[in-house]
Amino acid sequence: MPNKQLRYVGQNVARVDGVEKVTGKAKFTGDLVIPGMLHGKILRSPYPHARIRGIDASRAEMLPGVVAVLTAADISDTHPYYNGRPVIAIEKVRYVGEPVAAVAAVDQRTAAEALALIQVKYEELPAAVGLDAARAKDAPLIHENQHDNICGHEHVEKGNIGQGFAESDEIFEDTFTFPMVYHYALEPHSVIADFNDEGITVWSSAQHPFQVRGDIAKVFGLHPTKVRMVIPFLGGGFGSKSYTKFEPLVVALARKARGPVRICNSVAESMLTVRRHAARVRLKTGVKRDGTLVAREAEIYLDTGGYADNGPQVAIRAATRVLGPYRIPHICTDAYAVYTNSGSAGSFRAIGAPQTIFASESQMDIIAAKLGMDPAELRLKNFLKKGEELRPKLRGMDANLASSLKTLVWTSQWKRRSKKKGAAMGLACGATNAGATPISVAMVRLQPDGTIAVFAGSTEMGQGVRTVLSQIIAEELSLPLEAIHVGGADTKVTPYDASTGSSRSTTLMGTAVLRAARDLKNQLLKIGAEVFRVKPKEVQLVDGAMICGEMRLSFCEAMARRFGGAGGELIGHGDVGPEITGTLPVFWEIGMGTAELEVDEETGEVTIKRYVSVADVGKAIHPEGCIGQEEGAAMMGIGHTMFEQMIYEGGQLVNSSLVDYRVPTFSDVPKEFHTLLVENEDGPGPHGARGMGEGGLVSVAPAITNALARGYGVRIRDLPLTPERVWRTLREKKK
Amino acid sequence: MPNKQLRYVGQNVARVDGVEKVTGKAKFTGDLVIPGMLHGKILRSPYPHARIRGIDASRAEMLPGVVAVLTAADISDTHPYYNGRPVIAIEKVRYVGEPVAAVAAVDQRTAAEALALIQVKYEELPAAVGLDAARAKDAPLIHENQHDNICGHEHVEKGNIGQGFAESDEIFEDTFTFPMVYHYALEPHSVIADFNDEGITVWSSAQHPFQVRGDIAKVFGLHPTKVRMVIPFLGGGFGSKSYTKFEPLVVALARKARGPVRICNSVAESMLTVRRHAARVRLKTGVKRDGTLVAREAEIYLDTGGYADNGPQVAIRAATRVLGPYRIPHICTDAYAVYTNSGSAGSFRAIGAPQTIFASESQMDIIAAKLGMDPAELRLKNFLKKGEELRPKLRGMDANLASSLKTLVWTSQWKRRSKKKGAAMGLACGATNAGATPISVAMVRLQPDGTIAVFAGSTEMGQGVRTVLSQIIAEELSLPLEAIHVGGADTKVTPYDASTGSSRSTTLMGTAVLRAARDLKNQLLKIGAEVFRVKPKEVQLVDGAMICGEMRLSFCEAMARRFGGAGGELIGHGDVGPEITGTLPVFWEIGMGTAELEVDEETGEVTIKRYVSVADVGKAIHPEGCIGQEEGAAMMGIGHTMFEQMIYEGGQLVNSSLVDYRVPTFSDVPKEFHTLLVENEDGPGPHGARGMGEGGLVSVAPAITNALARGYGVRIRDLPLTPERVWRTLREKKK
Repeated sequence: MPNKQLRYVGQNVARVDGVEKVTGKAKFTGDLVIPGMLHGKILRSPYPHARIRGIDASRAEMLPGVVAVLTAADISDTHPYYNGRPVIAIEKVRYVGEPVAAVAAVDQRTAAEALALIQVKYEELPAAVGLDAARAKDAPLIHENQHDNICGHEHVEKGNIGQGFAESDEIFEDTFTFPMVYHYALEPHSVIADFNDEGITVWSSAQHPFQVRGDIAKVFGLHPTKVRMVIPFLGGGFGSKSYTKFEPLVVALARKARGPVRICNSVAESMLTVRRHAARVRLKTGVKRDGTLVAREAEIYLDTGGYADNGPQVAIRAATRVLGPYRIPHICTDAYAVYTNSGSAGSFRAIGAPQTIFASESQMDIIAAKLGMDPAELRLKNFLKKGEELRPKLRGMDANLASSLKTLVWTSQWKRRSKKKGAAMGLACGATNAGATPISVAMVRLQPDGTIAVFAGSTEMGQGVRTVLSQIIAEELSLPLEAIHVGGADTKVTPYDASTGSSRSTTLMGTAVLRAARDLKNQLLKIGAEVFRVKPKEVQLVDGAMICGEMRLSFCEAMARRFGGAGGELIGHGDVGPEITGTLPVFWEIGMGTAELEVDEETGEVTIKRYVSVADVGKAIHPEGCIGQEEGAAMMGIGHTMFEQMIYEGGQLVNSSLVDYRVPTFSDVPKEFHTLLVENEDGPGPHGARGMGEGGLVSVAPAITNALARGYGVRIRDLPLTPERVWRTLREKKK
Repeated sequence: MPNKQLRYVGQNVARVDGVEKVTGKAKFTGDLVIPGMLHGKILRSPYPHARIRGIDASRAEMLPGVVAVLTAADISDTHPYYNGRPVIAIEKVRYVGEPVAAVAAVDQRTAAEALALIQVKYEELPAAVGLDAARAKDAPLIHENQHDNICGHEHVEKGNIGQGFAESDEIFEDTFTFPMVYHYALEPHSVIADFNDEGITVWSSAQHPFQVRGDIAKVFGLHPTKVRMVIPFLGGGFGSKSYTKFEPLVVALARKARGPVRICNSVAESMLTVRRHAARVRLKTGVKRDGTLVAREAEIYLDTGGYADNGPQVAIRAATRVLGPYRIPHICTDAYAVYTNSGSAGSFRAIGAPQTIFASESQMDIIAAKLGMDPAELRLKNFLKKGEELRPKLRGMDANLASSLKTLVWTSQWKRRSKKKGAAMGLACGATNAGATPISVAMVRLQPDGTIAVFAGSTEMGQGVRTVLSQIIAEELSLPLEAIHVGGADTKVTPYDASTGSSRSTTLMGTAVLRAARDLKNQLLKIGAEVFRVKPKEVQLVDGAMICGEMRLSFCEAMARRFGGAGGELIGHGDVGPEITGTLPVFWEIGMGTAELEVDEETGEVTIKRYVSVADVGKAIHPEGCIGQEEGAAMMGIGHTMFEQMIYEGGQLVNSSLVDYRVPTFSDVPKEFHTLLVENEDGPGPHGARGMGEGGLVSVAPAITNALARGYGVRIRDLPLTPERVWRTLREKKK
């Protein structure tokens, strides 16, 4: 097929929501005012593990301005569990910060006052904080219906691990740790809920409205269509707003208060609401002398906190992602999500991958060093080829890994720069099985004035999905972007979409809107063909009109012809399901990077002088958008590699503020920061796009620790690389 | 095609909105509360015709609680005219009650107080009240950009009228008058408008939201998609809420007030907002001795009030409807909508027909009496046959008129009862060209739980459209009604629909939802065929599942198969345009009736003892619903025949309350009241339905005056038949 010049796809168009965001008109959940809205606040457990012996809310209820106080007693008529957690603490608390009661009042100040008047009798229990405490033989049981603190376990097997190690020339075994980190979206979790005779309406900063709708419906015993989720703009997500968080609590409070209630978290509260799984990864890999990987065994422990949230899925992903994008004939990996008495861990950009790829890519460099091989050569030797299987039950590798690595090597000038005297340069590669559940449905509706109203359930959290979808539609219909309006997700109005996350929207919702646009296009061509008296295939769409030779019929005129007057509309709809690729994953997300750094040996401070990132995006619908995603991901990676760590002491999170929890700032951006997009047009999405935005995250930590090892001779297996840790390690080496 | 047993269509199912209406949960515009909503009131002109020399609103603006006062000065940046009327009076008022200013305040009481503080300087002008005054040679010019007070004129011609009369054996000429009447929907006009940066939202008791949207968009210079009309339940419409009434005024007030504003009319205010056109009809008909109609000339004057509203369309319809459903070779009719200084007349059930068919059907009986023919025989002789043209440019008669009349004759026992001694029984027939603009678009969306969300822009004003649409969809998909949810009209969400009126929704929106349901059905059959490994035509839909032999796949299972998980949705859409019947009208609406009455000669009081109505409905989707519509229409007809008349004295409407304006009550329902539905399944709608609900109105007045003439020997040509008028006429006769 000849490559038609693309006019919108592949262009750096202005963000369709740019003006409303920079002028402050964009509405986030916290901006909304609902008639009669009350203000809510949550009373949270001060103990990491305790029984609730009684709650006396009477003084709080009597405070003037307090409308309702919610406790477990108020949800006894519901099915109060979702994703393994209760709407509000039932008889027991399992982490500091767990909601125990909630107040709805006429303003925030009254609600805060009321919290202080609620008296809760706790009976403290021994707490299991951290993986070791939770896994110990006599560890306190966090969920007493179990016999241990294992939340989920995934096992992946291939070949025969014993045989694999027996056939190996060299065996490497290392244990790596990865810290608890927090997403820090600019907007903390915010929810407004209203529960009246007609049903439930929830405005929330939720990434997956249809899933939250389903959970709320189950809790309150309603048909999903009686629950309406309306999602304004999100101020960042990164997975912190995936799945159902405390929406059911706000709904229950609104039910009791008989009026809408809003609860907006502070950052500190959101840090206790969700985080990334801290991990310990024991990795044992057997290789041939020539660098061929033969066997890999992994034991991965993920600290999932007091409740499951997305823990089991993270374990499932981790057990696969620890394998890297490599051909390994013998595999035995086990990943465990472990309950601990701390805030729940859930989804976070590239779930399970940063922890495990840190281990895998660090060890690959350990192997390369031992075998005297160039790290890039070792990767190239072992990369899966296109179509080749990583492990059973997953679709084979669908990307050209070698081409990405060669691009990285070339762009970063690896061969020259990594060997320079005094250089501290490392590289790493990552591949994650992405796309999540491939169900998306969309509608495009052509109005008599020639504009298109797009109904798509993707949630805009800054990643630019509304712009990308507009570009895809503009290209298909040959319409300027100004004529295309994408609204927010609203489960009553926008058709079903599984989720916004796992880098899936460009490929999956993009395909749904592309199909919807094609459906509409075919209807237009049919009208054009009738008017022009030709076959539909002889008609072109150009700039909002249909053309055939000298004849021209604008979309508006086509509508007027079809409907005989100034009204009507043409609707195109499209849906996508598992047929898009057959087996999962929908696509493999590929990210690779090189880091060059310098250490101040007196202070241990590491400066990343240069970072080069390569993302295999298939087709960059919006190149600048992709680069922004990649660089943002890299910065997040620098965060968990260099600075970020949530510190629990005695079950208390001691650094729950942005002063004490160190996120990267603009001064931490590497002096030289380059991103390249590889476009082989081999993804399953429109124009051959694959998803991206997570791949750039996973290579950062190992690239940096590999650089440190290569440049300074120290192999650090624990993150973050605080100056203290680096300094001590360097000193140890000198001894 | 074999007649499959229908399970939902043709059944008297429970109204889908019944429970919410009787329990008071149903929301009407006046029930809605929008955050920060202000209360508005309109200052209305006390003069029928005057110049506005100045408005001083300063004292009103200073009243505490007043947020904004709107006058013409505030709309100088808009295109302030729509349907010939201004958003608010500009320099001149043309009827008592015309909006001159409007106040938005924190509550209704403050708004009312503020009205009294607005000082308007008027310069009274001579008023033209009533047709005679407006048509007089030196009549005051109501719209000074014209040279007379003619608002609209329609001329219909066929053959050669002079020749026609020359060929006639007998010529009849009569003049009839029809009163000004008011619709009296239980809910007066109510509007809430909000104008902010994102656009305009209007909640209104409007029947045609897409048309109102277009008008508002034009006035304020916006794209229609920036204007959102949300329509809750209407408490009755009957045409009083067709087209744009004072929504633009409320929008302008909201714009000035910088917040949402609600204005709800009182009944008295609504009586000044819209009414039916009073009429004078001069009818001259030439016939052969054997009763064959040869020529008809008509001169129709319609009192359209101070502004056009729907006047020109009423004139257009009147000029045709005066012809009745008869074969007349020579035609010359002229209908004039005439401006007068009174409240505007607009749409009202069977526009232009009650006035003209009163004339036509009265005269038919005058003719029958003169020629010594049975009135039924005279009609039968002259009825158009199916396919025969009434007049140029309109589609031929599409109903079997004779079959309806024969049904009426049989059911009413005309032959026996009309000839009984002392009987006062009359009959009349009407046919109206109905359906309005045939553009309707609908969507049906199948949810994973097996329920259907229906998006259709019809407005539910009590006529039961939501129920009928549900039945059509239930039948097509073999689903119980409980699984089907029809929401209200919302121009942002429900696709384009031209209007709800002119009896069009069952045929046109019904066809759109039927096509949408079929689209969805085809998608389901395709999935079923794949699963069963058969051809789609071998699969049946039965009770929410697909069946083929022993194999069964529920809709939920089909969805799960298609999407591979617990999500997704299937969308069906359908649209209908002029192709449905080619030329207009979409269908002819046929209504006929007989009245039997008794007069108390001492008081002139007329009692209607028995009324039999026959409606040709094509197919009764909901038989009880049809009967309810027919009987409601007949009672409205009894209203304008017996009781109702808006009385203007000196430009003032003197009976603008329900005490002084006499609507029919339950005690006026005829002792015997029968309705028959003729179902020839020959309409253009689903299952052969045609529209109904207006036909039953038009035959009432002439059936009653014909009964009076036949039973009491007096021919009254003016309505209403107040006791005084009847008594005087009987006395005159006795002299």
